[in-house]
Amino acid sequence: MTVADRSLFVSRHVRVRDVMGASGVDALLVTHLPNVRYLTGLNSTDGAAIILRASLLLVVDFRYVTAAREAVQQLGDDGVQVVPVERSYDEAIVEILRSAAAARIGVEGAWLSVSRFNTLSARLAAAAPFPIQPDQRSPVLVPTERVVERARIVKDDREVLVLREAGRRLSLVARGLPGLVRAGRSEQEIAGEIERAMRDAGFSRPAFETIVASGPNSAFPHARPTGRRLAAGEPCVLDFGGVYDGYCVDLTRTVQLGRAATSMQRLFDAVSEAHDTAIAAVRPGIRPSEIDRAARDVLVRHGLGQAFGHGTGHGLGLEIHEEPRIGQIVAGRPDEPVEPGMVFTIEPGAYVPGLGGVRIEDDVLVTPGGCELLTDVPIWMEIL
Amino acid sequence: MTVADRSLFVSRHVRVRDVMGASGVDALLVTHLPNVRYLTGLNSTDGAAIILRASLLLVVDFRYVTAAREAVQQLGDDGVQVVPVERSYDEAIVEILRSAAAARIGVEGAWLSVSRFNTLSARLAAAAPFPIQPDQRSPVLVPTERVVERARIVKDDREVLVLREAGRRLSLVARGLPGLVRAGRSEQEIAGEIERAMRDAGFSRPAFETIVASGPNSAFPHARPTGRRLAAGEPCVLDFGGVYDGYCVDLTRTVQLGRAATSMQRLFDAVSEAHDTAIAAVRPGIRPSEIDRAARDVLVRHGLGQAFGHGTGHGLGLEIHEEPRIGQIVAGRPDEPVEPGMVFTIEPGAYVPGLGGVRIEDDVLVTPGGCELLTDVPIWMEIL
Repeated sequence: MTVADRSLFVSRHVRVRDVMGASGVDALLVTHLPNVRYLTGLNSTDGAAIILRASLLLVVDFRYVTAAREAVQQLGDDGVQVVPVERSYDEAIVEILRSAAAARIGVEGAWLSVSRFNTLSARLAAAAPFPIQPDQRSPVLVPTERVVERARIVKDDREVLVLREAGRRLSLVARGLPGLVRAGRSEQEIAGEIERAMRDAGFSRPAFETIVASGPNSAFPHARPTGRRLAAGEPCVLDFGGVYDGYCVDLTRTVQLGRAATSMQRLFDAVSEAHDTAIAAVRPGIRPSEIDRAARDVLVRHGLGQAFGHGTGHGLGLEIHEEPRIGQIVAGRPDEPVEPGMVFTIEPGAYVPGLGGVRIEDDVLVTPGGCELLTDVPIWMEIL
Repeated sequence: MTVADRSLFVSRHVRVRDVMGASGVDALLVTHLPNVRYLTGLNSTDGAAIILRASLLLVVDFRYVTAAREAVQQLGDDGVQVVPVERSYDEAIVEILRSAAAARIGVEGAWLSVSRFNTLSARLAAAAPFPIQPDQRSPVLVPTERVVERARIVKDDREVLVLREAGRRLSLVARGLPGLVRAGRSEQEIAGEIERAMRDAGFSRPAFETIVASGPNSAFPHARPTGRRLAAGEPCVLDFGGVYDGYCVDLTRTVQLGRAATSMQRLFDAVSEAHDTAIAAVRPGIRPSEIDRAARDVLVRHGLGQAFGHGTGHGLGLEIHEEPRIGQIVAGRPDEPVEPGMVFTIEPGAYVPGLGGVRIEDDVLVTPGGCELLTDVPIWMEIL
């Protein structure tokens, strides 16, 4: 990690503390692990971060204490300390919050379970000094929304470098698809080959279960690979992604073994046009719902409005599905204008039962002037 | 799916409705996806099930409607119906609960987020008829604990067949380890080979990120594979698992390239003894904490009590970590006696910074007379 990287972590902490201040909390308990990783660099399957006004405590159990100490040494933020869990996470968390005399303690409402909220609340109440002094308030847990996520939605320079490299590597894998998709091979075999190629390309793991959906299966947007063997004259949707240095990228191509029937060719052309139109629409200031509409209008014009049942895309980062969501307006979901540094997929599709389905997906980085494609792969359809 | 399988799903529904009755709720909203799958057979990345007194509604969006209908046709329970989401899951869920006039609606406290609990509560209140009639109660959401989990903890016949087959296949992969672990290979390369072998053995995906931890890295119980190359004279912990027909199995071996130093041999012998002792202790009626103590006592006797910082095991099933947890007594965690049909790992370990670590893990099925090993692999240490 370079000196520049170090200042990135410090500025992440500054940004999150700004949002905390606006949320009226004097502590924030971060339990969503991708958020813990964003704040501390620690990659673990358990742990929590507690952000106080002047310090950030990384709470981990036995398994991660050494890894956490190594991560924290890299941060360049002297206010970050590792706190090992003695008996249970909740006990350690309550003890820290009690010592800090935090009164309004933000929790991540979208990620903390009802049960844990209730348990922590009860333990905090039990741990509070009694009687409460006149100048003290009883500590309360306050559900907050999108405190760390609002920082994460715009990628910083290091994240952009990693995502660009991940997109380059995923494109290399995708360029090999025509060699993998052959008549007689099963969907599962092809999925295995794709995951093998991703690992060989440097990805630590698939970002999700690879989709290989052939013939009638292609009409299911989220089909799982089966033992079905590919035959000539049918479409095949290939949707896959990998995790590279912690960051997720995602790509879909739909190919056709041999000549496509006219009806499939029309479906393909319509989705391809929707994909290009949505990408052309991406620029700072446009709302996610407007990007979605750009894709959707094309498909509606081709009579395929009902055949496009999902959103146009989703943010990419430490999670495979994160903000911004590129979809129609839904009550309660943010639709804030996109900004330079946001990274998301563009993946319109059309699915016609009895005929088949087509989805085409690439990853974009919003730039001051529009967007940069992080994936760079021809959009072939027919493999002969 | 056979007729016998069909009655299995019906009896799952009966068991869950029994627990619901005891919990005093007249509807249960199931949002934890492994629980949705357990109840309906649907394997999806989104969805919900609502259990009412006489029906079970499977709520899915566009992407999963056809798959859900196919799954439900297989169930042999006429009371199960698919409800497609029109606009949002929460809207569809509230509409169903309103139509059913459910008054006390159980939610899964361990899995439902605080935010979603609050949103659903507000929508339900808004959707309730006003004024409330004298014979009606305003609908309330009631956090419940372990309603579906209590059914899942004891595997039914079909699940046992799948887990036994999964264990057999994982054992075949593990028996190939001595051929994979060679000096000069990197941890990442070996992890890739293991995941390749799992896919070739019929696993749909790794159940978790494969651990290959060599030399000093072996002292980290949850190390991630690095580019570090293996050398002779050092230990290597290999921990991997796969998902087979939806069910997870998990196995660890620790091997040593070449002759082991006396200190490593002692560590290995102690962990091996703890592993065997814990497995010998497994029988119906014993508490998880007692199985853990059986392993822990051995390590304490060898002066390694502090070196064993994690629990002895965890349940296996639709999730890689589920009940029962085989560990020390922790406030609020169940420690009910084990029963025939439970499946869990036994995986004691000892980690000594500066020296290295050892973990040995197998999967057991509790039987009326004791337990059956689902994994069957020699416990070698030295690979020469």
